Amino acid sequence: MSSAAPPNHAAPIDARPVVDRGAVVAELQRLLRADQVVTDAAALAEYAHDDAEWAPFELPLAVVLAEHEGDVAAVVRLAAASGARVVPRGGGTGLSGGANAVADGIVLSLERMTRIVEIDAAERFAVAEAGVINDTLRQAVAEQGLWYPPDPASYRISTIGGNAATNAGGICCVKYGVTRDYVLGLRVVLADGEIVDLGRRTAKGVTGFDLTALMVGSEGTLGIITQVTVKLLPLAGREERAVVGAFGSLIAAGEAVSAISASGIVPSALEILDRTCIEAVDAWQSLGLPHGVDTLLLAKVDEVAALGERHAASVADLMTGAGALSVEQAADADEVDRLFVARRLAYPALERLGPVLTEDICVPRGAVPEMLARIQSAAAEFDVVIANIAHAGDGNLHPLIIAPEGDDAAKARAKLAFDRIVDECRALGGTVTGEHGVGLLKLPGARAELGDRVIAMHAAIKQALDPKGTLNPGKAF
Amino acid sequence: MSSAAPPNHAAPIDARPVVDRGAVVAELQRLLRADQVVTDAAALAEYAHDDAEWAPFELPLAVVLAEHEGDVAAVVRLAAASGARVVPRGGGTGLSGGANAVADGIVLSLERMTRIVEIDAAERFAVAEAGVINDTLRQAVAEQGLWYPPDPASYRISTIGGNAATNAGGICCVKYGVTRDYVLGLRVVLADGEIVDLGRRTAKGVTGFDLTALMVGSEGTLGIITQVTVKLLPLAGREERAVVGAFGSLIAAGEAVSAISASGIVPSALEILDRTCIEAVDAWQSLGLPHGVDTLLLAKVDEVAALGERHAASVADLMTGAGALSVEQAADADEVDRLFVARRLAYPALERLGPVLTEDICVPRGAVPEMLARIQSAAAEFDVVIANIAHAGDGNLHPLIIAPEGDDAAKARAKLAFDRIVDECRALGGTVTGEHGVGLLKLPGARAELGDRVIAMHAAIKQALDPKGTLNPGKAF
Repeated sequence: MSSAAPPNHAAPIDARPVVDRGAVVAELQRLLRADQVVTDAAALAEYAHDDAEWAPFELPLAVVLAEHEGDVAAVVRLAAASGARVVPRGGGTGLSGGANAVADGIVLSLERMTRIVEIDAAERFAVAEAGVINDTLRQAVAEQGLWYPPDPASYRISTIGGNAATNAGGICCVKYGVTRDYVLGLRVVLADGEIVDLGRRTAKGVTGFDLTALMVGSEGTLGIITQVTVKLLPLAGREERAVVGAFGSLIAAGEAVSAISASGIVPSALEILDRTCIEAVDAWQSLGLPHGVDTLLLAKVDEVAALGERHAASVADLMTGAGALSVEQAADADEVDRLFVARRLAYPALERLGPVLTEDICVPRGAVPEMLARIQSAAAEFDVVIANIAHAGDGNLHPLIIAPEGDDAAKARAKLAFDRIVDECRALGGTVTGEHGVGLLKLPGARAELGDRVIAMHAAIKQALDPKGTLNPGKAF
Repeated sequence: MSSAAPPNHAAPIDARPVVDRGAVVAELQRLLRADQVVTDAAALAEYAHDDAEWAPFELPLAVVLAEHEGDVAAVVRLAAASGARVVPRGGGTGLSGGANAVADGIVLSLERMTRIVEIDAAERFAVAEAGVINDTLRQAVAEQGLWYPPDPASYRISTIGGNAATNAGGICCVKYGVTRDYVLGLRVVLADGEIVDLGRRTAKGVTGFDLTALMVGSEGTLGIITQVTVKLLPLAGREERAVVGAFGSLIAAGEAVSAISASGIVPSALEILDRTCIEAVDAWQSLGLPHGVDTLLLAKVDEVAALGERHAASVADLMTGAGALSVEQAADADEVDRLFVARRLAYPALERLGPVLTEDICVPRGAVPEMLARIQSAAAEFDVVIANIAHAGDGNLHPLIIAPEGDDAAKARAKLAFDRIVDECRALGGTVTGEHGVGLLKLPGARAELGDRVIAMHAAIKQALDPKGTLNPGKAF
């Protein structure tokens, strides 16, 4: 990930009376082991922000490395008593600034809480501490023949707690849904330090309000998730096949997406890379694409045997019918990976060009080509480079706005393009964040989208569950 | 539906100063057309309760038949101003008393709000007013090649608004999930009469708290749902096959359920009927079952073509392997219906025996046989007849406790059995309501399951969103 901007001391996220930082640190050191309380400048800077470019942050007063829920509860109790704030953090891979620190805040990292508590193969659920890496959980359940579907791009480095706190999406959610669809229950430390279990382990359950769903995606503002119970699917019954089409225009690729969607086939991945993406990848590691390629459409289907073959063939035919310059298919796992290499390399290839400001809008599926066209208009108007990775199958677009390192004027123009894209997304009936969360970057867009009364509902619920404003101040709404 | 018990005037659901009922009725009559405000004794009695047997209720001060969201908002504003309460109601098919009236309450029926606002085949969503019958919506979207999966047993008479307010389940949710999994957005009248849109129409979205999920299943206590936006699936790509096994014992059927679950096949229905059910159906309409049948296990799989055939054959083999006395299969739609006739007739067949007190517990799948055994122990101990319909595939059991009409002693024993079953469910790691909701019947169980602190979170959220306690008092938590 690229380096972030310096702290924006001129514009604190939230103004409050300054807490007695020294006393809070001393108390943390009394409550926890020395190696769990970090206050050196380098670590404070490292933990001061997540992977969101250009979102504001301040240096926290301390970083705490919690090792069990008791640590989390103790820190929250101390914060509530002292007026300090708590900014919870998983892998720090967020792209909206949801884990960015505040000056009177303790960054509470759950990265050491890595215990997989239980895997119940018969009931098909797993219980994991918040700091378990998504991919670690995925591999552990696979050994028992089970599958945890949510696959954010960060799955090798992001935590299950962070995934739940942000309701992370991913590539396969076009068919299999997002994190919320798999979270059965949560253990949560509330704003006064009390620990509660929400949700259930059974397949169904409607006892009381769905507080589990309320916590999922609330970005640590209502409670700190310390343990997650997730629903699992059988690993068997899927065979991945990839179909990748190279198109001469975005319009042609968009027509292929519409045709696939209308066919009734639900692909397990349907990703678009635009020309800027392709060129960045090709310049780094040659893809050997045919001449004149403007857009790649990368699909997977995962039905087994003859049905999977038929679906893959249909997807290929639909791409050809929409005017693909070439279509490749793969059924072998290594070949599938090879065909998806451009998707995997896109983000790092673009980061080589400069700091990346990642957008995360979601529009109706049918509006994807129009939205992509408006993004390119914004790129032209504000004279910035914008590459597009799009989860085309569910209308979730990631325009990646790139400014050369150190070019402040370009950065300013990038921010204008970012705001314009959010406005255009809303004009097309979209939502300002499809899967990354509001954090700090999407606060203005979220306010516009939700409206005053729904924002007031958020504030009322926040006040009800965190009356002192201890938890992750200024985020999410 | 069987007749309900008389109003329990001795134990009001919630004590508050009596409102000026005459003034409220007069104002309702001023606000609405005459035929929308019902105050005759017969109608008040009819609308005083839902289908929950023996849950307490009182006669409301009026029944309002809302025809659009403006009516709903006007009634809520009047209630908030006058101190009256509002009890929202869809089809009145609830089984937990969630729509039962209170003496200072206006029953607000949304049954006339039956407009399907929009079906978007390309984006695969539909927007329906709250009073649209589940099956009406299902048929309307099917005409456009789409499928709305949630299928509560009441789907021919229950409304989509009521389904959302209670987070209704159904038979296919073992594979396809419950109502919550399909609700993208809601239009809701809040406790002060203001109307808000929650959620989205896009495939994904994480802007702000998931207030849509908070409203779904909150049983009208936080807002009144007037319009529901649901996600749809393609209708194509499914072929239903039924496999029905007749077993000599519950244990054998339970072993078949475990074997099917362990096979990795996810059936689209997996229902158990116990001996009491089978005998009731057989006595009414002969099923022609082999001698010695104690338990029926009814499965569906819905994969297409060869895979569907293979899965159906595997399910049949697994039933045989677990000791089924006979196994029948069907692939033709009429034959599938015929094999499931016992499931369809079970509830009406049991109602012929007397008023039915419907339980709705959900235990871990593997605990289904043990739970069924404990239910029969409770039946013996309290000398009541208990029949069992179980969504075995997700551990959701419906013990149906039957007392002869007019036998108050049997009713008292039935209530003891009901409470015992809830306790046993919790002892086995279950939840007190799998899909019917807390309403009134499950209030003690819900309090025990959730614990004081989580109940306090509910109360804080209720206070935040409905500070005057206008909406559906005393329900849900």
